[in-house]
Amino acid sequence: MADERELTVKELAEHVGGRLVGPDSIAIVRVASLEAAGDKEIAYVEDAKHFDSARASQATCLIVPENFAFTRSGQAAIVVARPKLAFARIAALLHPQKRREPEVHSSAVIAASANVALNVYVGPGAAIGDHTTVGARTRIEAGVVIGDNVTIGVDCVLHPNVSLYDDVTIGDRVVLHAGVCIGADGFGYVRDDMGYHKFPQIGTVVIEDDVELGAHTCVDRGALGRTRIGRGTKIDNLVQVGHNVDIGERVVIASQTGISGSVIIEDDCVIGGQVGFGDHIRVQSGAVIGSKAGILPGKIVRPGVWWGVPIIPLAEYKRRNAHLGRLPELLQELKELQRRLDELERK
Amino acid sequence: MADERELTVKELAEHVGGRLVGPDSIAIVRVASLEAAGDKEIAYVEDAKHFDSARASQATCLIVPENFAFTRSGQAAIVVARPKLAFARIAALLHPQKRREPEVHSSAVIAASANVALNVYVGPGAAIGDHTTVGARTRIEAGVVIGDNVTIGVDCVLHPNVSLYDDVTIGDRVVLHAGVCIGADGFGYVRDDMGYHKFPQIGTVVIEDDVELGAHTCVDRGALGRTRIGRGTKIDNLVQVGHNVDIGERVVIASQTGISGSVIIEDDCVIGGQVGFGDHIRVQSGAVIGSKAGILPGKIVRPGVWWGVPIIPLAEYKRRNAHLGRLPELLQELKELQRRLDELERK
Amino acid sequence: MADERELTVKELAEHVGGRLVGPDSIAIVRVASLEAAGDKEIAYVEDAKHFDSARASQATCLIVPENFAFTRSGQAAIVVARPKLAFARIAALLHPQKRREPEVHSSAVIAASANVALNVYVGPGAAIGDHTTVGARTRIEAGVVIGDNVTIGVDCVLHPNVSLYDDVTIGDRVVLHAGVCIGADGFGYVRDDMGYHKFPQIGTVVIEDDVELGAHTCVDRGALGRTRIGRGTKIDNLVQVGHNVDIGERVVIASQTGISGSVIIEDDCVIGGQVGFGDHIRVQSGAVIGSKAGILPGKIVRPGVWWGVPIIPLAEYKRRNAHLGRLPELLQELKELQRRLDELERK
Repeated sequence: MADERELTVKELAEHVGGRLVGPDSIAIVRVASLEAAGDKEIAYVEDAKHFDSARASQATCLIVPENFAFTRSGQAAIVVARPKLAFARIAALLHPQKRREPEVHSSAVIAASANVALNVYVGPGAAIGDHTTVGARTRIEAGVVIGDNVTIGVDCVLHPNVSLYDDVTIGDRVVLHAGVCIGADGFGYVRDDMGYHKFPQIGTVVIEDDVELGAHTCVDRGALGRTRIGRGTKIDNLVQVGHNVDIGERVVIASQTGISGSVIIEDDCVIGGQVGFGDHIRVQSGAVIGSKAGILPGKIVRPGVWWGVPIIPLAEYKRRNAHLGRLPELLQELKELQRRLDELERK
Repeated sequence: MADERELTVKELAEHVGGRLVGPDSIAIVRVASLEAAGDKEIAYVEDAKHFDSARASQATCLIVPENFAFTRSGQAAIVVARPKLAFARIAALLHPQKRREPEVHSSAVIAASANVALNVYVGPGAAIGDHTTVGARTRIEAGVVIGDNVTIGVDCVLHPNVSLYDDVTIGDRVVLHAGVCIGADGFGYVRDDMGYHKFPQIGTVVIEDDVELGAHTCVDRGALGRTRIGRGTKIDNLVQVGHNVDIGERVVIASQTGISGSVIIEDDCVIGGQVGFGDHIRVQSGAVIGSKAGILPGKIVRPGVWWGVPIIPLAEYKRRNAHLGRLPELLQELKELQRRLDELERK
Repeated sequence: MADERELTVKELAEHVGGRLVGPDSIAIVRVASLEAAGDKEIAYVEDAKHFDSARASQATCLIVPENFAFTRSGQAAIVVARPKLAFARIAALLHPQKRREPEVHSSAVIAASANVALNVYVGPGAAIGDHTTVGARTRIEAGVVIGDNVTIGVDCVLHPNVSLYDDVTIGDRVVLHAGVCIGADGFGYVRDDMGYHKFPQIGTVVIEDDVELGAHTCVDRGALGRTRIGRGTKIDNLVQVGHNVDIGERVVIASQTGISGSVIIEDDCVIGGQVGFGDHIRVQSGAVIGSKAGILPGKIVRPGVWWGVPIIPLAEYKRRNAHLGRLPELLQELKELQRRLDELERK
């Protein structure tokens, strides 16, 4: 997935503001796990329970926390406050996103009225509609279909077979994985005797900067207004985002979660996988919702950790679950009480 | 998503059989929400709790129910029995589905034996197989792949990257959102010592008139017979419909629900999101199933409202849930009873 | 979905090692259900509860178990130990997978450095990247996009609009249904004050021989190592397989299940639909997990049948559920005990 560079441990230590221990001119080309790392590879350890594995690691360089005690001399190490974070930043340096030479493949179909920056990549069979704008250095892979009046920022990556409907706006540095679908009609109908009439689904979608959406995730357009995904939010595969949903900044949502219409999720929330949201819910900033939870329509979810269907505070959920496990003996005890009472009454 | 027309409030009132109040020649170009509506825009109010917002709305015209009391003169209003329904019908008039000029894009690949009506649109890179028929005015967007022996009716819309396997039948006015997949093999195997052998998946799929399927929804082909989705049924995004499922007319199914093989859902049922169906279930006409419910294989679900895993009547579910919340105090009370009994027995 | 051949009942009986009863030269062209089968068609019966339907069947030939008692003479029958398995094997013979003449469509785009066997089929608009290898007789349908350095074995079928990222390895006889996505980035980030940094997602995916993946199923690439799906495993539609997951051989996973990072599922497990796995779970060989179950991170699941959220043994789940249904009367009994105690104490 990535090209490789070669950098010295000194350069890497400087990049993350870490303190270098051991030799400083050794070359590193790749990140790896503690177990797999070998020559020219860098690994990290953060949790003290992995310190022994770290000491056994064959990595050319280790990223370690302050409280790590070295036993082996000769190995290079970078000491930092947050090794995992430093590892992620070094990985981004060693394994930059795949680059494509600017090119519009001859089989791509771009409307005459579209405004595509000169240095973008447009892969085989991609299609770009009327009055659509694509920013500099954006990479549009094969089979991507982009509608009319779409705006896409700079440095984005649209992986294969992404579909963008008309009128959608995508910020800068947005990554859309394969099969992402943005701007399909929301699910709203009005029933009469004959059947269902579509409630108008004529709004828009705004995806802000630095958002990443997983494969096959769907974001529906607003019915009348807009659906929004805020800056820096990360969403996993196969997630459903309904019409007029408003997701704040730096929200994380795991796979297969479904969010009904007009839900608001404020900044910095963390949502597990397979969670279900009824419509018109507001999740307040900083709330954490466990996987498989279900939230009733209209609910306001305060900061804290929540779980269950319908959701309750995590501590309460755990207590309730423990009680549930005791139900059989509880029934037993109740019967025993009845027996004793019978006896007493007989006396 | 839509072109715009300009119509007078009089024309709109006539279209929905409503009574016009106020000036009758004002032009309207767009529907909007009560809050956002302004010049040349029409909004609606139905629920009395929104009457104050309606009176404050800057909409050029309001659609209102009989019991709405006007306070502002000069504003146009259309009085109808069901404002939301009238609003939906007016929106369909003002914002008709996107039209494409009839065209087969030069990069589309259509089999010589296919029978495609003259006035269809086939977008860039779409592929249509042998002996496949496409009806008049149907719109096939870029990247759609249609197999052999497929029949598609008139006035359908197939959004980008839809995949239709061989032998599938699609009625008239069907809308398939981006990435819909119809006719993949059902999930059926027979195990022996060596592993799994595929049970034959050689049936078909029939999608009747006026069906709408959400993005990335999958409808598997019948194993031996057919999978059917009845007229006027509406299905949301990322729904799984297994082999030999039979869904009736005017059924509504929300996002991420999964329906196992040979399930029957009769006419006019309403199914929430993330519901799971075991195989061979029959849901009787008019039943309503709450989101995240789970239904055991072979179950017959009678009319009424159902919830939970496994499903029980909604009223019972609510009662049980209330009792669950009382479990801790119940345990407390049990202990207190034991203490009192101990004391009594000691005497 | 399939071409048809004509074979005699004798040939079919020999193919499955069955004992032929009745005439032996009758021709069969198609498999069918007991109810629908007619002239030149073969059906099967295995369960004694369907013996009456079998006797009423108009099928030209029946596949039956040893304990089936014939009442009609003249009809052909094949007697075997496992009729359903024999039926599946006969179906595979009568309805072989669709064959395509070897051809690379003129609109397909194949990198000059790719190594594609001579007798493959590559459909309209498919794209194959640099240094990618495709084995003999593999069928790549329209709209499939394959990245760089991908290895695909022989006799595979990639249905329309499949997306394979770079560096993925696919074995022999693998079937990927429409929209399958393999190799997208896993969902891993490290948070700092500014927001989320991507944890490196630079590993690979290995799909072994004879695997079948359902429509729109996603398999993410390993973060540092690899994600693996073992030989002969079958996965349904819309399933999520996270980074570094290791799934063994002959595992079956139903629709919409989600598997978090680093989960291990050993050989011969059976997983229901809509199941949710936390990360770092190990499911031991032979375990069966019911639909909609939820499993906590880090859990070791021993062989046996499991259900519920969080999972417990099926027998315990059933008992608990029965107790839950008795909660209201339990509360009633508790009150009655209190009343009786009050009375006793008063005396």
